[in-house]
This record gives sequence, C-alpha cells and structure tokens, in this order.
Amino acid sequence: MNYQPLQPETINKLQEIVGTAHVLYDPETLTNYSHDETEDLSFLPEAVIRPGTAAEVSAILKCCNQYLIPVTPRGAGTSLSGSALPVHGGLVLSLERMNRIIDIDERNLQATVEPGVITQVLMDAAAEKGFLYPVDPASRGSCFIGGNIAHGSGGPRVVKYGTIRDYILNLEVVLPSGEIIQTGANTLKNASGYSLTQLMIGSEGTLGIVTKAVLKLIPKPTHSLVMLASFFSNEAACQAVSAIFRAGIIPSALEFMERAGVEWVLEYETLDFEAKEGVQAYLLIEVDGREPEQLFADCEKIAGVLEAFGSGDVLLAESAAQKEALWKIRHTMPHSIKANSVYKEEDTVVPRAELPALIKGIKAIGDQYGFRSVCYGHAGDGNLHVNIIKAGMNDEDWKNKLRLGIREIFQLTASLGGTLSGEHGIGYVQREFMDVIYPPAHLELLRAIKKAFDPNNILNPGKILL
Amino acid sequence: MNYQPLQPETINKLQEIVGTAHVLYDPETLTNYSHDETEDLSFLPEAVIRPGTAAEVSAILKCCNQYLIPVTPRGAGTSLSGSALPVHGGLVLSLERMNRIIDIDERNLQATVEPGVITQVLMDAAAEKGFLYPVDPASRGSCFIGGNIAHGSGGPRVVKYGTIRDYILNLEVVLPSGEIIQTGANTLKNASGYSLTQLMIGSEGTLGIVTKAVLKLIPKPTHSLVMLASFFSNEAACQAVSAIFRAGIIPSALEFMERAGVEWVLEYETLDFEAKEGVQAYLLIEVDGREPEQLFADCEKIAGVLEAFGSGDVLLAESAAQKEALWKIRHTMPHSIKANSVYKEEDTVVPRAELPALIKGIKAIGDQYGFRSVCYGHAGDGNLHVNIIKAGMNDEDWKNKLRLGIREIFQLTASLGGTLSGEHGIGYVQREFMDVIYPPAHLELLRAIKKAFDPNNILNPGKILL
Repeated sequence: MNYQPLQPETINKLQEIVGTAHVLYDPETLTNYSHDETEDLSFLPEAVIRPGTAAEVSAILKCCNQYLIPVTPRGAGTSLSGSALPVHGGLVLSLERMNRIIDIDERNLQATVEPGVITQVLMDAAAEKGFLYPVDPASRGSCFIGGNIAHGSGGPRVVKYGTIRDYILNLEVVLPSGEIIQTGANTLKNASGYSLTQLMIGSEGTLGIVTKAVLKLIPKPTHSLVMLASFFSNEAACQAVSAIFRAGIIPSALEFMERAGVEWVLEYETLDFEAKEGVQAYLLIEVDGREPEQLFADCEKIAGVLEAFGSGDVLLAESAAQKEALWKIRHTMPHSIKANSVYKEEDTVVPRAELPALIKGIKAIGDQYGFRSVCYGHAGDGNLHVNIIKAGMNDEDWKNKLRLGIREIFQLTASLGGTLSGEHGIGYVQREFMDVIYPPAHLELLRAIKKAFDPNNILNPGKILL
Repeated sequence: MNYQPLQPETINKLQEIVGTAHVLYDPETLTNYSHDETEDLSFLPEAVIRPGTAAEVSAILKCCNQYLIPVTPRGAGTSLSGSALPVHGGLVLSLERMNRIIDIDERNLQATVEPGVITQVLMDAAAEKGFLYPVDPASRGSCFIGGNIAHGSGGPRVVKYGTIRDYILNLEVVLPSGEIIQTGANTLKNASGYSLTQLMIGSEGTLGIVTKAVLKLIPKPTHSLVMLASFFSNEAACQAVSAIFRAGIIPSALEFMERAGVEWVLEYETLDFEAKEGVQAYLLIEVDGREPEQLFADCEKIAGVLEAFGSGDVLLAESAAQKEALWKIRHTMPHSIKANSVYKEEDTVVPRAELPALIKGIKAIGDQYGFRSVCYGHAGDGNLHVNIIKAGMNDEDWKNKLRLGIREIFQLTASLGGTLSGEHGIGYVQREFMDVIYPPAHLELLRAIKKAFDPNNILNPGKILL
C-alpha cells in the first residue's frame, strides 16, 4: 500500500473535524504515543488525533481513506502485543476523550459505554448498582473497555465468568469507509446473520473503530474466599487444577505461580510472606457466590483435591485484608519482572489439563536456547504467561536466536491443542508466528475479511497479519 | 449466478466420492429432503448426498464449485427459518452419517463430535460422565449439533448457561473451495486473529460446512426446583421476569406462556392442569445448583418477587415427576399449535425488560391486520416466540397483507433494542426483513464476507441475504 505522508492541508482538514486542540504533533506528544506496554518497541506517529464523537471518528476515517493515511486506534496504550504501535506512521487515533458511561440500565442489567471508559471505572459503577462486570484484566485500573474489546480481553475471572466476548451485546462501529453501523442488537441472544459483534471482538482495531458498546451485567456475588496452596512441583500444581473442575467446582479464579515468580515479587516488594524451602509452585484459588456456607464447603472440597495432589500448606483468607494480601502476590508479579529485567512475555494457552506438559516443554526449550523463564497465569483456563528473561543471553541471541525458541514454544503449544494468545492478542509482535497455528487457506480468509472491511488497508496496518 | 443442472457425469463423480449408495435421487428421497420444519415450504433438490468424512465433504464441494452446483447442507432438518431448504435445487448434503461422538475428554471437560450427533445424545453422554452440556433447543431429541452450530442455537437454559456460542471452542470446517481448516484451538480463550469460530456459528451453512466440533462441558448441577406462577396480565408476568434478576438470582430457565398457549396445550393433550379464570399468563421458573437448601432459599426469594408483581397461584415442583409435569405444558405448546392450525412463527428478541411493550405492541398490530397470535418463549433472555394463527384470515391476506404486519412486528422489535431472531436464524423466510434491522452498509459487509468465503455462491445460496 502506498501510504501518503501527512500534508499540512490534511492536518488542516483534521483540525476542522476535531478542533485545533485535538490534533497534536509536537515531539513530546508524538513520543508519548509512540509506544504501548510492549517490550521496548517504539514507532513515531506523524500526528495524534483525539476525536470526541463517532461522527468525528467517521469524518477522520473518510479523510484518511481519501489520502491513504494509516490510522492506528489507541485506547489506554496498555497493549502487550504492540497493537497500538503506529508501525506505518500516520495518525494515532486516541479514544481517550470518549470516556462516558452513557447508561447503566438497571431494568435490563446492561451498560452502554464509550470506548475510553477505564475498565475499573465501569466495574465500580456497576458494583454501585449491585451488579458485576467481571472482566478484569491485570491493567484494569488504566486500560479502556475499547481496548479490551479489541483484544477479547480476559483476566483471572474468565474461568468462571468468561471473557469480554461473553459480555458484549452490541457495538457501534465506524468502518474504514466512515460508515457507522451497529453490529447487533441490545439482546442476550441474536441469530440474525453473521455476528459482526463477535468478529469485531479481538480484531485489534483492524476492521473498524468501536465508538460505543452495550455490555451485559450480572447480579453481584456477595461473598468470596481465597486460598493459597503450595506444591513441590509445577506438574502436581497443574494436575490439581484440572481435578478441581472434575470435582464439580468452578472457582472464580484459579491462578498458577512458579516459585521463581514469587521470588521476584518478594525481592521487589516487602510482603508478609515467605517462600518455603522445596515449594516449586503455588495455586491461588478464589470462590465466590451468595452463600458463605456453600463457599466454605467448596473450599473444603478443594482442599481435599489439593491434598490428593500432594499440596503443602494451604492458607485460607476470609477477611478482605487477608484476601488482598494473597492477591497482591499475584498482582505484583508482572511489575516485579518488568521492573528488574529485559523480558518478553508470551501468552500461551492450552486445554487446561495440558499445562504440566506445556511448562515442562517450555523449560526444556529454555535449556536448549539458553533462556530462563518465569511462568504464571490463569491456570483455570490453561492460559500461561511465559516471561522470558534475558539475563545472561547476549544481545545477538536475544534478538535473533530467541525467536526460534519462541517458535518452538508455540509449536509445542499448538501440538497440545493450544494457540498463540489467550488474551493479549497477536498485534505486531506475534504476527510472524501465525503460520505455526494457521495454514495458508486460513490466513487467506483472514486477509479476505480484512479486505472486505478495509480495502485500502488504512486501519491499524501491520497488525495480526504479516 | 448461473447454476448448472446436475449432469449424469457429475452424479458419477459424486458417486465415486461417497459410493453409489450415498447419492440418492429417487422421487421419494427427493421429497423427503425437500422440506424442513418451516411452515409448509418445499423445494425439490436434484440429488441428496450423504458423505461420511470431512475428506468426502471436501471432494464434493470441490466438484460442485467446479460445476457450479448449489449445495444445501442439512442436519436433522428441524430448521424453523427454512435454512435447510434447497431453494436453488442442486444437492442437499446431509450430515446424518457423520454422527460419532469422537471423544469425551474428562481431563479437560471437552467433547469432540461430528456434526450429525443428536443434541440429546451428546447431553446424555456428557451426563454419564458427570458433565453438563446445557444447550437444549426444543428439538433436542432430533436436531443435530451441526445444525445447532449453524444457527447459534439456544433453548430454555440460555438465561443461565448461554447459547451454543459459549460452548464451541473449535471447529473443523470444509470451505466451499474444499480446503479444510480448524477455526480456532481447543482452548477456553483465544485471542489469535479474527474469530472464525464465532463467525461460523450462526452462519447457517453459508460460509462452510462444519465436520467436527470441540465443545466445552461444565460440571453438572445435582439439584433443581421448578415453579409455575400465574398472573392476571401479560405485563405483570413480564415485569416480574426482570425483577427476578434484579433480586440477584439467575434462574436456569424462565419461560413465559400466554393463557391462549396453555389452552391450546390443554385441548391437544390431557394434562392434570386447569387454567383458572382470570389468569392471563404463566411463568415457568427453574433454578439449579448443587445445594438444595440454597435452591429452596432462591425459590422463596423468587416467590416474594412474584407476589410483589401480583402473581396468583405459585406451584413448586420438587419431585422429578412434578417437574416434568410442569415442563410438559411448555414443551407441548409448539406441537399443539402446529398440529391444529396454519401458523407462522416469529422469533423476536428484545432486552428482557421490554417484553411487556413488545407483547402489547404485537397484539395491537394483530388487531390492525386481523390476525391472532399466541406468544410464549424464553422470557429470561427476552426471546419471544410469536405464533401467528391464520384462523379466519383469508388466503390472500395471509399470503400478502400479513407480511406487512410481520414487518411492523420487527420494526417494533428493533425500536425496543431487539432484533429479528434470537435462535431460529434468518434462513429463507426472514431474509426480506433484514433491512428492518440493518442499513445497506451493514448488509454490504455481510455480502462481502460471504464472497470472501464462497465467491461462486454455491453454499446454501438464497439464505440470510436476499
């Protein structure tokens, strides 16, 4: 595609659309919008535009389609797959000003929001009315609902409540042509033609820009309990995960943490917790519901399962403070690794009973390629975040040889019935591995769909597909 | 599209692919496969083919693509939207021989099945291992999983457990080109490119033919209770529906029945039940779980809500026989109407709190156009099956004027935030109403997606889109 550089007259047109104050091209702003949370990658846009309405988004896309200017939509910039990087320059289109909760409909248990609403803000607004919006990715305090939709986001509670895919009823979307459509209806079910709603979810801003979303809310559980169990091997911990479901219990969170991850946390932050000798892995387990007695019974049953798989200590947290203390170990883990090392994070996902084989295989591949890894993640849904630590690897190997190791990790993942990403998306950094999971006929279909929506390839080019 | 009639040499080729016994073109077979369960519609195919493997399906589609022969995939033929009607002749491709449950994976709570497995057969096989496959459309005793996938099927338990959309992890699909792809991975979450899995679900066999499906199973609830409540107005019954959720309870079924529907049932079958004077509507409510005490507490809470909305008698069924007796009223309703009248069934769906407005509006439209209607359905998800009874309407009005009335029903549905179909699909009979809910830009996208998958339009042509 022959993209055109932004000309002064195009900037004028864009300024007419959104107002002068919302087209920015000073060096500091361009730098601020040149990266997301993906490794140390950075690409400068030519300008940043901040529309306030769907009509403005529409006018911008029409203009950019006419002048062949690439447009990279951006939420809060918390992507871990590089999906908000303007790799072809052009415009970064930030949704930050479209941040209104338009309605919380108590009659229908639905919320209507703009894409720039912070996930935690929506969760709090729903909770205030007695409802639960359960999709809480790690970055929920800063990430936007729009970005969550673009990536099909998850988080620890997917295991019981599903991903954002299960909560989006309807979307208002601006197509690359500038047309504004509703993808569906504000209903809990819809069998009226191909589901553009589901197609938009996880499309990483390459098919259209979401300007409004209608979400399902559910009654809020009133009680929860949290347990932390230790294990003397990764395999034993992962085998216990699968057994909990077979015992008939669906926890509201079931997180796996390698000992090494806990050690990073304890170095990074002072916590009242000690990683006992011999312990290799931890499971953090939460159950929620409306009946405390039922939850205690569940925890007892779970403890029985854990014991059968040779667990060591099992801590049970009942008070809010105790629960928070246990969760803090898990929540601090990504930051502790990020703050102290050069790393790459892979978002592997497999059927949950295959986790032991996945972890074992990853360690073997690490040994072969000379990298260390720290694994943690949403074991309840087989979603393992693999943090590859540069440590002693030389720069050349880190840059070139490592990708072969990552390819092997994904080949292993695929052979176990899994795939590249459970919740972070493909974006810019995993494009090169798409051929590991999809044959050419599949990739051709993805390309044809992209072309049907965006014939000039102006919307988030360079993402998902090579 | 210039479809070609089936030539003897093409039949020879098809016979070579599947064997002579599985290409049928005797008049009786053609008649048997000329209709589904949609009204009295009938279109003769030129031949019926019954492949036994994905490779055979692939070879058939390659052949039909070469000779431009329309192919109508067919499950059990229980469609209510005409999606299995061979409206352009050509081949009916029946999946009836591909009926194996390939695996029930107890470690991962997953089932792998061929498309011709009867829904109830899968439910029973899952239950035998202690698992629940909860998606049970009314036709579950005869319909196929493949057809359920093609229509995004639901049923009474959607309100708690979701539609089949929430249970399909991965599909093997034969594309019109003959290529065989996996749409996703066998994982509970997947953020690896556009979701072809979700795009295939509800595409009514127009984009590809599903030859294998991996489904999620969940732990089986051990207990349930069923209540039947009567109301003196439709509105009061529907208002109570919404209030139950606001009280924090998600029932496993919440069905609405108009008095007229119950009267049809009582005429059709001898039941130990009387429709008391003054009662206008009924709610059938089921709760399920693992703790009987919790369920009794839920029922008590629900009864309080019902009373607040002026319910009359509330029956509580505890024994299996009592529960079945109450469910029988609801389950018999479609048959009782079908057996005794010429009718059309519309599958309207709205946000659940808008049900009172929908029912009121439908009655007013009926008065204006001179038709009667009997309404029942999945009130918990706002999905109302509207059975329009011909009764005294003359043939000319039934054929021509009625469609204007139906259009008005859909316009009303759309104005309430709803859409054409909650679970029956668009198929052949609702195509003409797609413009009520989608603007041209949306329909163009649907057409472009169809073209990306099926450039020669050989697969189930004449469905979804005019």
